[in-house]
Parts: sequence; structure tokens; C-alpha cells
Amino acid sequence: MEERLKKLKKATKKLQILNQNQRADLILNIASAIEQNMAKIIKANLIDLQNAKDLSPALQDRLKLDEARIKSLADGIRDIAMLKDPIGKIHDGWSAKSGLKIEKISVPLGVIAMIYESRPNVTAEVAALAIKSANGCALKGGKEAINSNLALANIIKDSLGEYGGCIEYFDISRDEVKNLIKMDRYLDLVVPRGGEGLVKFVSSNASVPVLKHDKGVCHIYVHQDANIQKALNICINAKCSRPGVCNAAESILVDEMIADEFLPLLKSELDKFNVIIHGCDKSKQIIKCQSADELSYYNEYLDFELNLKIVSGFDEALSHIDEYSSGHSEAIISDNYSVCEMFLSLVDSACVYANASTRFSDGGEFGFGAEVGISTCKMHARGPVGVDELTTYKYIIRGDGQTR
Amino acid sequence: MEERLKKLKKATKKLQILNQNQRADLILNIASAIEQNMAKIIKANLIDLQNAKDLSPALQDRLKLDEARIKSLADGIRDIAMLKDPIGKIHDGWSAKSGLKIEKISVPLGVIAMIYESRPNVTAEVAALAIKSANGCALKGGKEAINSNLALANIIKDSLGEYGGCIEYFDISRDEVKNLIKMDRYLDLVVPRGGEGLVKFVSSNASVPVLKHDKGVCHIYVHQDANIQKALNICINAKCSRPGVCNAAESILVDEMIADEFLPLLKSELDKFNVIIHGCDKSKQIIKCQSADELSYYNEYLDFELNLKIVSGFDEALSHIDEYSSGHSEAIISDNYSVCEMFLSLVDSACVYANASTRFSDGGEFGFGAEVGISTCKMHARGPVGVDELTTYKYIIRGDGQTR
Repeated sequence: MEERLKKLKKATKKLQILNQNQRADLILNIASAIEQNMAKIIKANLIDLQNAKDLSPALQDRLKLDEARIKSLADGIRDIAMLKDPIGKIHDGWSAKSGLKIEKISVPLGVIAMIYESRPNVTAEVAALAIKSANGCALKGGKEAINSNLALANIIKDSLGEYGGCIEYFDISRDEVKNLIKMDRYLDLVVPRGGEGLVKFVSSNASVPVLKHDKGVCHIYVHQDANIQKALNICINAKCSRPGVCNAAESILVDEMIADEFLPLLKSELDKFNVIIHGCDKSKQIIKCQSADELSYYNEYLDFELNLKIVSGFDEALSHIDEYSSGHSEAIISDNYSVCEMFLSLVDSACVYANASTRFSDGGEFGFGAEVGISTCKMHARGPVGVDELTTYKYIIRGDGQTR
Repeated sequence: MEERLKKLKKATKKLQILNQNQRADLILNIASAIEQNMAKIIKANLIDLQNAKDLSPALQDRLKLDEARIKSLADGIRDIAMLKDPIGKIHDGWSAKSGLKIEKISVPLGVIAMIYESRPNVTAEVAALAIKSANGCALKGGKEAINSNLALANIIKDSLGEYGGCIEYFDISRDEVKNLIKMDRYLDLVVPRGGEGLVKFVSSNASVPVLKHDKGVCHIYVHQDANIQKALNICINAKCSRPGVCNAAESILVDEMIADEFLPLLKSELDKFNVIIHGCDKSKQIIKCQSADELSYYNEYLDFELNLKIVSGFDEALSHIDEYSSGHSEAIISDNYSVCEMFLSLVDSACVYANASTRFSDGGEFGFGAEVGISTCKMHARGPVGVDELTTYKYIIRGDGQTR
């Protein structure tokens, strides 16, 4: 493995000498190769699907690659090629007292390891994002998608010609992954993307820096001055439009003052999706629902299930979010200007919304193009991780013989 | 300990509600309190100095606080108060396709733990940098400075009045430090600042993200088109002006074409400082010096001692730096425009210089004010770490009822 990583690092150096047009061309090659090899990919995917008969229909669907999905994958990759180049951007520049001219410019991180589960698209998307940001990439997907992933990885490597060495797929065991994520001599970053178990496994075993994509326990706070119709739309959208994703809401907090009016309306909308409600004691006096306990509020249900809590006002909402949020995305619904601004300022999460659904926390919706994931770390990158977040910076200093 | 950290986190929340003027005032209070309590600090420092009789004169000097040093410490802290506020800076802002207005703004990291050795000034400087960036701060200094550190920490806490809780000094054992740096529920970042042993201990035991200040194996590459006088000045400055610091040069690479001319001149300058030279075989044919072996080139001497190597040209210099550099600071000395630009572009270190001494890699010289250290990490912050590097960002999103 060390030998492979050494080669990967060397191939990455070669990639980094290319200019932005050359890197964009490599990415366009990937997109074309994926379309041209559609039959091969579908064949490999069918084997994975056959082996996945015991998985839930939702997971089987995530695994599936058909003609339409492969076409859309290729289009997505072309979009990545067209993104503004993230390398060589001058973040800042100034003359120091010594007369030195200092520039802070964006540079690639180096080699990124991506440990992921399920959707085989990730293999191609991450390869393209890595090349766009002039990074090398070690990929390790879930075993349920191994045939699809290997087919994609081989097609990608072939399409890159002499630069194929900068993408490496590691078909390795969990124990070997444990070794991989300790190789800080060759790897600059590891991104775990998948269930809570995977994320914990990677963060507790890595000595390479980890960009965590942790769970999303997202809150919607319906303030007493909320526009009731907007609040209803947003709550339903945030919970029910796609409950299995990290930016879906898991808890709704409602101001006491409007609970009598709002809760029955909310319940009748949630009932249309058969949402299981875990309510606080006060909620249970207004609508029929299950009981929430202290631990419910930490849950990421990822399903048609949510927590409901009546709060006395802004302060209680804020301290509830402080305690139970995973720092992903939270929203307030209110027409009160200063309350909204206070919420936006005081809530310490990656994405904080006023009067919009938490479902917008997404690289595509933010305009970043495809994303590597949503970071719940505070270090390095927070929120959607696109190509800009896969860079670091260095200082370039031009002098004329200065000594100190 | 957990109880103290919980309180620290809570006190930090209170600090974060203050505006920039209020935070600057708190820092000015620290500076005044330090001056007013000068006698108390010197008294405590004398106990440390008495206990340090067995340490080297250099270490004793680092430990010492006298009237002039305390005055200059207070002035440095006033400078920190006057820095541009790093919080609430809008890094970027745009309207998304959905009509959402997205802003990316700088926010505090949260609570920072600083594990450091020797200079007691650090206690006050880091406290001031933390408050400037609206972060709480857990401090743990070396046992050799314990009396000075405790005196300073108490004076600082008193001067902060009701905000004193956001600075906590931990007078704890190494085993307890091991626990402290695993408290990722309360701490957002740990910065180790000291010898290689301390940095390794912290990075290998922390589950809190670490901002490493690793060793500085800095290179000067004297290219064949170098102005010889500038090259000599810079080499001598980079090695001899303060050999014990991380931005001092440890290795000098000289182009073959000019070695016969340059090496004798360099040697006669280095001899004035009694610098021990570890030369490659070719160097030894030109000047009298010790032999460098493969491992010498990884050394951070931190003393009047350096490696000297003759290289065949740019490519060999680059691959030598790639292999042996610790990613801190490197310089090229050349009057050739394209060679300088290639060096600036291809060398992957935090600070890359053309025609200037590596000794400028410093928060003060960069114009950042005081610094927490020089990061050799690629993630989050690279190079000098000032108040801006003690922040993260969040996205604030203003909508009008948008759902997805």
C-alpha cells in the first residue's frame, strides 16, 4: 500500500504542473469516457444490484446506475470542468514594512483520501473535483458497490492517459483502511462520507486530518411572528421532501404563543406523509403524538419521523439548539427583523437560515457545483465542500536581498 | 476538569455577544493590569528563575521577565487590541438561483487550548489574541514557568471582571493534558507550541483538531545567477541572526556552476560565527568541513550548525527540498526571473521566498501583530497564525419562504 501511495503522490506532482485548461480537458475526457463506456458500467452495476437483493429498496435505488443516471453523471462532471479554477487565486497581497511583497495564494492540498458508502457516482464526482483542484485522490467505496466503483475507476484512469496515476482506487479491507488513514506522509486529508459508523471509524483511527461529514440534526424554529403558511411549507419541505439526507430537519421548535394555532395545522400536513411525531409534554396536550424524551432530541431520524417541542421563546429555542444541534443547518421562521438577525448571528452552525428550508444546504444549491460533502467541522472548511475547500494556501514572498 | 471546561465554554458564549469595541477594551484592561502588577509578576518570575538554576543560560533567559520585558509585553498586547477586528468579516456573498441571499462570514472557532513551553509572555499574548478573536482559551504552560504563568493568568482573569471565565489556566500533569486534548465536546482547537517532543505528544494523543507548529527545516537555494553579495548576506542572516528559531535556515543548496567561487566566501563568513558545516562530498573538495549523511538533511539544528550541499541545478534543488523540507519556509537567491517564478510556484511550503531571508516568516514581520505560532499544517491555517487564523466561518442565508 505504501508503494501505491508513494506513486500516487508522485503522479499528483505531475498533475500540479498542468495549467487550468489542461486540467479541465482531463475532466472532460472523464465525462466522455463514462458515456462511451456506459454498457460496461451498467454491466458491472448489475452484478452489484444482484448481490444487493437483501438491501432495502432505498439502498438498492441509491446503488443503481442506469442510462439516464450515467448521462446525468457525465453532465455533472462537465459542469465541474467548467467551474472557475480554484488554484492560484490571490486571496490577499500586501507590502510588508521590510519592503517584501507578500501574496497569499491558493494551492492544492496534495493527496485526498475519500472513504465512502453506497452511491457509485461519488467515485467519478470526487475524481473530477480532485483533478479540478489539482489534487491526487485515493478512493475507497463501499463493498456493496465494488463492481461499479472498479469499473468507473478503471474507465477514469484510462481516460486520463499519462495522468491516470493521480486517481487510485483501493479495494481493501477495513483493517487496511485503518492503515491507510494513518499514512500522513502521503495523504493530506481524509474525507469520510457515509453513515455515522463510518465517520466515527475514520475520525477515531486517522492520523491524517479528517474533514468530517457528521450527522445533520437540523432544527426549524417557528417564532411567534412567523407567517404561518410559510412556516408550514418550510417545515414540510425540510422534513418530507427527502427525509434520508443530512440537511433534512429532525426537530421543530414552536413558540408557545402560537402553538395552539400552529400545531394542529402542522400535524395535518405531516399526517399526509405519515410522519411519526415525538412531542414534548406540552405538545401532547394540543395534538396526538408519541412522547419525546431527552435522548430523542439528539436523533438523526433520516426518515418520516421528527421531534416537536414547544419553547417559551427565543432564548429557550437558542439554548435547545446549542445543546442538541450537530452544527449542520438551522432555520428560523419569523417576520420580526431583529429576531431573525439575532438568530443568524447567535446560532453556531455551518448554515443558518432565516425564512428558508434547511434543505438548501447543498453544494449545488449554493452554486459550488458538485460537492465532496457537507462539513460539520469548524476547522478548515464548514458547510458544503466544493473545489475551493479542497485547496489550502501558501505565502509567496518577493524580495530584493532583504535580511532581518 | 470537565466541569471547568463546561464553564469555560459557557463563559466564551458570553464573550461572543460583545462587540469589537468591548472586546478591545477588555484587552486594554489586560495590558494595564500587567503594568500595574509588575512587582507581583517579577516576584513570581524570580521563584521560577531560582528553580531554573540547572537550565541552560539560553533557557533561563527565555524564562526571565524584567521591567523592560513586561512593559514591552503590555505594549504588544495594546497592539493586539488595535488590530482590525477579525470577526464578522464578510468573506463572500451572493444570490443563489433560489433567490436566497448567502453570506460567508467569519466567526470565532470557540474554545482554543494552548499547550506551550518556556516563555511566560505566551500566557498573556495568547489570552489577548483569543479575546480579540472572541474565542475562549485553555492555557497550559511549562512547569519551569508555572509561578510566572499563574501570576499572569490570575492578573488577566481579574482584569477581565465578569468575563474572566473565558481564560482558564490548567496547572495539570502530562496525563491530565492527555485527557484535556481529547475533550472535543468543549474544545475546538489545540495548539502545541514548543519542542518536537511536545508537538508529537499532542498530535498523537489529541482528538481535538491540532494546529501543529512543527520543526522548521528551512532551505536557502543559491542559484547560479545569484547576486553573490546578496546570497552571502541572506545565508548568514538566515542561519546566524537567531539560530534557535524555527525560521532559521538549516540547509544551504548551492549550484555547481558557482560553488568554487561561493563556498570559500560563505565559509569565511560562517567561520565568524563558528558555524559547524555538514557538507556533501563535493563541498568537501572545495572547503574544509564535516561530512553530511542522508539523515543530516532532516535535522533542525537550532544552533550554529548547518548542512551544505552542491546541486547540479534547479531540478535537484527542488527534489532535495521536496524530500527534506518540513514545509515551513524556503528561499531561492537568483537574478533569473523565470527561475525565481518557477521556484515560487513549485515549492510546496507555507512561505516561499525569492531573494530574501527565511527569517521573515513571522506574524509580526507579515503585519499580523502577535502570532500564536507558525503552522506547518496544510489544513485550516498555514504559516504565521494570527487572529484571522483563529476564526472559522459560517454561512448566513436570508430567504423569503423558499422551499426546495
